Amino acid sequence: MSMPTIQIGLLGLGNVGTGVLNILTHHADMLSQRTGKKLKVKSILVRDLAKYHHYKMPGVKLTSKPEDILEDPDIQIVVEAMGGENPAYGFIKQALTSGKFVVTANKEVVSKHKKEFFELAKQHKVDIYFEASVGGGIPLIRSLKVGYAANQIQSLYGILNGTTNYILTQIGDQGMEFDAAIKAAQKLGFAEADPTMDVSGLDTAYKLSILAAVAFKVDVQVSDFHYEGIESVTLKDIQLAKELGYAIKLLAIGYRMGSAGMVFRVHPTMIPLDQPLAAVRNEVNAVFFVGDSVGESMLSGKGAGGSPTGSAIVSDIVDIAFDTRVRVSQDGNGHRHVVLDGVESPHYENKRNLEDALSKVNLVNIEDTYSQFYLRVLVTDTTGALAKLASVLGDQEVSISKMIQRDMVGNCAEVVIVTHKIKESYMQQALSNVKALSCVKKVESVIRVGLEEV
Amino acid sequence: MSMPTIQIGLLGLGNVGTGVLNILTHHADMLSQRTGKKLKVKSILVRDLAKYHHYKMPGVKLTSKPEDILEDPDIQIVVEAMGGENPAYGFIKQALTSGKFVVTANKEVVSKHKKEFFELAKQHKVDIYFEASVGGGIPLIRSLKVGYAANQIQSLYGILNGTTNYILTQIGDQGMEFDAAIKAAQKLGFAEADPTMDVSGLDTAYKLSILAAVAFKVDVQVSDFHYEGIESVTLKDIQLAKELGYAIKLLAIGYRMGSAGMVFRVHPTMIPLDQPLAAVRNEVNAVFFVGDSVGESMLSGKGAGGSPTGSAIVSDIVDIAFDTRVRVSQDGNGHRHVVLDGVESPHYENKRNLEDALSKVNLVNIEDTYSQFYLRVLVTDTTGALAKLASVLGDQEVSISKMIQRDMVGNCAEVVIVTHKIKESYMQQALSNVKALSCVKKVESVIRVGLEEV
Repeated sequence: MSMPTIQIGLLGLGNVGTGVLNILTHHADMLSQRTGKKLKVKSILVRDLAKYHHYKMPGVKLTSKPEDILEDPDIQIVVEAMGGENPAYGFIKQALTSGKFVVTANKEVVSKHKKEFFELAKQHKVDIYFEASVGGGIPLIRSLKVGYAANQIQSLYGILNGTTNYILTQIGDQGMEFDAAIKAAQKLGFAEADPTMDVSGLDTAYKLSILAAVAFKVDVQVSDFHYEGIESVTLKDIQLAKELGYAIKLLAIGYRMGSAGMVFRVHPTMIPLDQPLAAVRNEVNAVFFVGDSVGESMLSGKGAGGSPTGSAIVSDIVDIAFDTRVRVSQDGNGHRHVVLDGVESPHYENKRNLEDALSKVNLVNIEDTYSQFYLRVLVTDTTGALAKLASVLGDQEVSISKMIQRDMVGNCAEVVIVTHKIKESYMQQALSNVKALSCVKKVESVIRVGLEEV
Repeated sequence: MSMPTIQIGLLGLGNVGTGVLNILTHHADMLSQRTGKKLKVKSILVRDLAKYHHYKMPGVKLTSKPEDILEDPDIQIVVEAMGGENPAYGFIKQALTSGKFVVTANKEVVSKHKKEFFELAKQHKVDIYFEASVGGGIPLIRSLKVGYAANQIQSLYGILNGTTNYILTQIGDQGMEFDAAIKAAQKLGFAEADPTMDVSGLDTAYKLSILAAVAFKVDVQVSDFHYEGIESVTLKDIQLAKELGYAIKLLAIGYRMGSAGMVFRVHPTMIPLDQPLAAVRNEVNAVFFVGDSVGESMLSGKGAGGSPTGSAIVSDIVDIAFDTRVRVSQDGNGHRHVVLDGVESPHYENKRNLEDALSKVNLVNIEDTYSQFYLRVLVTDTTGALAKLASVLGDQEVSISKMIQRDMVGNCAEVVIVTHKIKESYMQQALSNVKALSCVKKVESVIRVGLEEV
């Protein structure tokens, strides 16, 4: 029996591209058996051809010209493994417009341009897959599109950035300060030379906006919601959190706030130690969902690296192979090309896309959401300070769940407060009043506490 | 735009059937939006019609005759929610043979007859979906078929039975003995009046044989491998395990043992407390996988109940809706019926089935596998006993990692031993030699320790 072949063009041969190539090569037989089709990398776009002149990849064409892939009628699937907004954005648009299926690991470009991509894919009867863009090898996107399709997702809480989770874990385990932990992470390859995108929360925010589209069918950009990073989380706060029964994680949060609308936000969060997310350590990613039928569910695994990300990309290729039929078509010049059913025929419906339902909804501003807060405050005059603090907080209806007076730091005393749940705007006003108190030297830390909706 | 309708026949209206009906009713609009098709329950098979005479389900026909569903040409999907081998086995065969898609939550019938079902489905160009048969609402089957398709799965470890996990958790938390914990579980609806299938490990074994087919493409029956239940796990062992840094869980285990073949087994296992499975509590299910590309990954969630199981069944229905096209067909008598593309056409390939690859492989007998063991032994003569125990174990090459002398029980002393890894057959011989020692009153407990392959 002759097995049809699907030909793949790979944009980029870095860590992720190499992972994809390795899996497709190493598992060629297994994948053919599973899909009934041969999955073959035909061409790879690299920046600097000279770098690869001694590479031996029989039957694979290396090229530095994007058009060799984007304009090749025999390539049915384009895998974008370059990262960054440009030139990936243009390449993906061109591929979709040419009737090619696209698989991408690129959270930035999907986050920013998802709506346009979904519409282009629909228009050209193809599809764009992006399992690898969030949570590495964990089948998050696929589970949300199909596995949890019977549910209205009520809330989700994700640890979506391996670098920051590694850093936070190491700070706690090793008693390191933030800078030392970053250096250790860089040494092990868990952090980039410039870790800003990870540490600032932006990477997590991109991923949350993608999950928002899949889980809640909402079109949201990172500029539409509050995100912050882990720069201000200290060893001391992590140790205090542990004493209080919490772990500090950088969380992507999305939930429905009744009729008010949807809440999305990214920030360090103190999570109760008996919550499954608190046990997600080092570079592992995880998402904890609450669905109205399935209840609580959690998916976890490695969130980055060539091999897990490659696993997700190849799962998308397998899904395309499952979803399409390979057919021979003749073009205007009489040339015969193998095409995926859908490329030139009306048979394929890009059924798992979201463009119809993807809509703007009312987003609740973080000022109007409710959290518990952990505060660490340096005060000069202990005796009077506690009463004044409580009074200033109380003026803004912030009630105190726990107040602990800690060590003296120089001639100041350290006070740790955990509040009851309070509206963010009230808390911010209370904080600015606290800072104005003469007995308050500094508000050292403010960290939100708890998964409000669970 | 007129939206095509897929009509569903529901076999059974117990806990699971009701869950399915509720989701399809309550989320009708959302599901139509997601699939582009109306998903409508046309008929429901119930045992006793009289019981339902006051039910109001407009447009739904209740019947006590299976043929009203199995022979109705307008029903495209049959949902089997009865449980048990018979009559479900015959009903599923008839549905597949009639060209209907089947969705089932029935672990027993899938475990026993999966190969025949897969072949029938292929032959009749339909498919059988069984996400709900393992792990309730967790998208395990779908993740293994597609999400992890790029991986050779190396090993899996599953907590697949909510009843036993609830019982084991409660014994530990509440300091209850086994019988009291079962009664508590029954009271809360987490255990059946006759809990034998759960407690004996048989339920877990059925589910493992299904995962074996999906994860390892192996056709294995529960009679082909060793399974045991939690009947002999005591409060004392759970407390001792915790002191030693372990939690006791009933685990379904499957792994590749090099060239020797595959290992499948089900038994109580002491899991290190820092392993994610150790934190899976009460009625929650979880599966921890190791894939050669993705590395370690874990999926968890509610493993039973009408609503999570209904969520999984409806996700299968959604998948069928995604995978097929609705078409009008005319039968021999000139009647027009709505059919799913695939029922009468050559277009549908039941692509996610496993029949081609599902094979017999070499199964390694448990006697030839390796584990650490925890033993609790009552000895009469403490001074001499420890040396004799060590010597008898040593004769079978069982070396001791930890030996702790515990409380006196009457005039006997309790000795707890954790061994290094040893071949099962050697351990069994050593145990029978231990039992023959005059200083040994009783071997109270033998529990395997650790996830060997992680």
